[in-house]
Amino acid sequence: MPRKVAVLGSGSWGTALSIVLADNGHSVHLWGRSEEQVTSINEKRKNSRYIKDVELPDGIQASTDIRTILADADYVVIVVPTKAVRDVIQSALPHLNSGALIVHASKGIEPETHLRISEMIHEELPEGHNHPIAALSGPSHAEEVCYRQPTTVTCSSEDEEAAKSVQDLFMNQSFRVYTNIDIIGVEMGGALKNIIAIGAGMTNGLGFGDNARAALMTRGLAEIARLGMKLGANPMTFAGLSGLGDLIVTCTSEHSRNWRAGKRLGEGISAKQVEDEMGMVVEGIRTTKAAYQLAEKVNVDMPITSELFHVLFDDKPPKEAVAELMGRVKKHEVEDLKLNDKDPLNYFEP
Amino acid sequence: MPRKVAVLGSGSWGTALSIVLADNGHSVHLWGRSEEQVTSINEKRKNSRYIKDVELPDGIQASTDIRTILADADYVVIVVPTKAVRDVIQSALPHLNSGALIVHASKGIEPETHLRISEMIHEELPEGHNHPIAALSGPSHAEEVCYRQPTTVTCSSEDEEAAKSVQDLFMNQSFRVYTNIDIIGVEMGGALKNIIAIGAGMTNGLGFGDNARAALMTRGLAEIARLGMKLGANPMTFAGLSGLGDLIVTCTSEHSRNWRAGKRLGEGISAKQVEDEMGMVVEGIRTTKAAYQLAEKVNVDMPITSELFHVLFDDKPPKEAVAELMGRVKKHEVEDLKLNDKDPLNYFEP
Repeated sequence: MPRKVAVLGSGSWGTALSIVLADNGHSVHLWGRSEEQVTSINEKRKNSRYIKDVELPDGIQASTDIRTILADADYVVIVVPTKAVRDVIQSALPHLNSGALIVHASKGIEPETHLRISEMIHEELPEGHNHPIAALSGPSHAEEVCYRQPTTVTCSSEDEEAAKSVQDLFMNQSFRVYTNIDIIGVEMGGALKNIIAIGAGMTNGLGFGDNARAALMTRGLAEIARLGMKLGANPMTFAGLSGLGDLIVTCTSEHSRNWRAGKRLGEGISAKQVEDEMGMVVEGIRTTKAAYQLAEKVNVDMPITSELFHVLFDDKPPKEAVAELMGRVKKHEVEDLKLNDKDPLNYFEP
Repeated sequence: MPRKVAVLGSGSWGTALSIVLADNGHSVHLWGRSEEQVTSINEKRKNSRYIKDVELPDGIQASTDIRTILADADYVVIVVPTKAVRDVIQSALPHLNSGALIVHASKGIEPETHLRISEMIHEELPEGHNHPIAALSGPSHAEEVCYRQPTTVTCSSEDEEAAKSVQDLFMNQSFRVYTNIDIIGVEMGGALKNIIAIGAGMTNGLGFGDNARAALMTRGLAEIARLGMKLGANPMTFAGLSGLGDLIVTCTSEHSRNWRAGKRLGEGISAKQVEDEMGMVVEGIRTTKAAYQLAEKVNVDMPITSELFHVLFDDKPPKEAVAELMGRVKKHEVEDLKLNDKDPLNYFEP
């Protein structure tokens, strides 16, 4: 059944998800901040800033007026950087349809509070609200989704019916949606993989090869899972699409802005310069800080995150950080799988 | 302590491992079949066929005479394609030093018998022999090892002391060796990842993008672990360097010959033509057959391996195979993590 869907955020991922929804016959109302961009979408059927060569389906209508966008919407898709999530919810709140399902496709952890996106959304809504909250995550470059290349993602919610409803909304021939009720694992995997992507880019910027990157990704996934488990996630979520799958896409593709930021860091540019240069939010930088604080707080060992934190916020030379991670020689080091008791949960213990 | 090490196999990986050993001060005796290649190694300090621009350390001496190579060797490193393993052991057998430790760095499963490499070696040795057997595996492009780029691998043996001894032999500043006693998991991961690499190359040859590849790799690792577990491996070995790590390197790099073979298949070339064209053994093709038979025998569901088997041996069009894997639309499909009982072992059950 065609539904009315509000998409808040007209960046590349918001645009890609709007295309999926319009392809499925839904009426998509896309909210953007820039008049020029909105006009381009409505009149030229192009997003003037992102993925410029893709023609947008007629089912997408854009506006800068969030009230119009939200009127009668059954679903509200939030696709903005982590630091903009609270603002957007506050602007949307007075106009939200009663019972509208909120699904976010952002990936991050809030610095200082260490909240996941769904927790931030929940906190901004009035007590006793009737909005189910879901997260959409997985290995998905926006460009490929716009070109209808095969893509698989995970939709997660504590409310299983909400997850299934979002699955129905987005699922089509080239965009395949699985559900998973472990929203902690899904959100943590999506957020934390950006840290490892910065690290992977950094090894490349330093001139190291694929062997080093693969080792970093393997050890990176283990430390992500370790923190996730401590916070209540199911460890196996990290072996799935929103964990391993998204890690692979983000760490092995030059499309990824976190990877590119890491590469520039490896080449000797400071974190501040990197963000200025890219003119885009690099989620992984903020997430590294949040994860570093969180790991300290809950006492989980995250060597890669910790080294990256010192590179980003303490001016530690990247070469020194990677050397410490990769180069140390220790005799008789066993890959820290506690194999004897055959309990794989132990793998994720430090 | 400098040791005498025989390396049987002068391909790119045999050459790379010889360099690591010579860098560590060992006396390396490299066996090759070609007089021309052996002369080039001894006189020009270059391997005339592989990694031609790397100068070989003085500690490497080559010969076509396996008897000379093996005389007094404490360690014998076997680095030949799976199908040559039995022949090489048979040639070596009369000249093996009593108690010499045999370590192999080959990755495959024997068709028909479905034996792992260490099992094939064991079968060729006389009953009651005194040769410990170990396997060396992990994310390691030979080229990068020759250039002393940071690399981490796993050494595995049922005999823990043997694994530690091989770790000592190879470990240095840029080549880091972990041990793992789960040799079933280590050998299965190294062999089966080549199947997924063919699949990853095939999606690329068909024009699909990074999203599809990441999904294939994620589901691929799950089916590898499923088969490995059924054969007695520890599932978490597949989350380590010899599983996930090697999968990443092999599926995301154009250096990998299995990936390249898959790409050509995706472009419409037949399996036979691909091997002729490449002039090299493509381990993954044979491994696909062995794994397909093995999965049938032990009744494990391996959808990716099965589709590839039909492409390689039944002329199934790659497009049809990938479409069946990626494109099917099924409503309310849950990522097959059995989350409720919190037992991650269930993840690998079909």
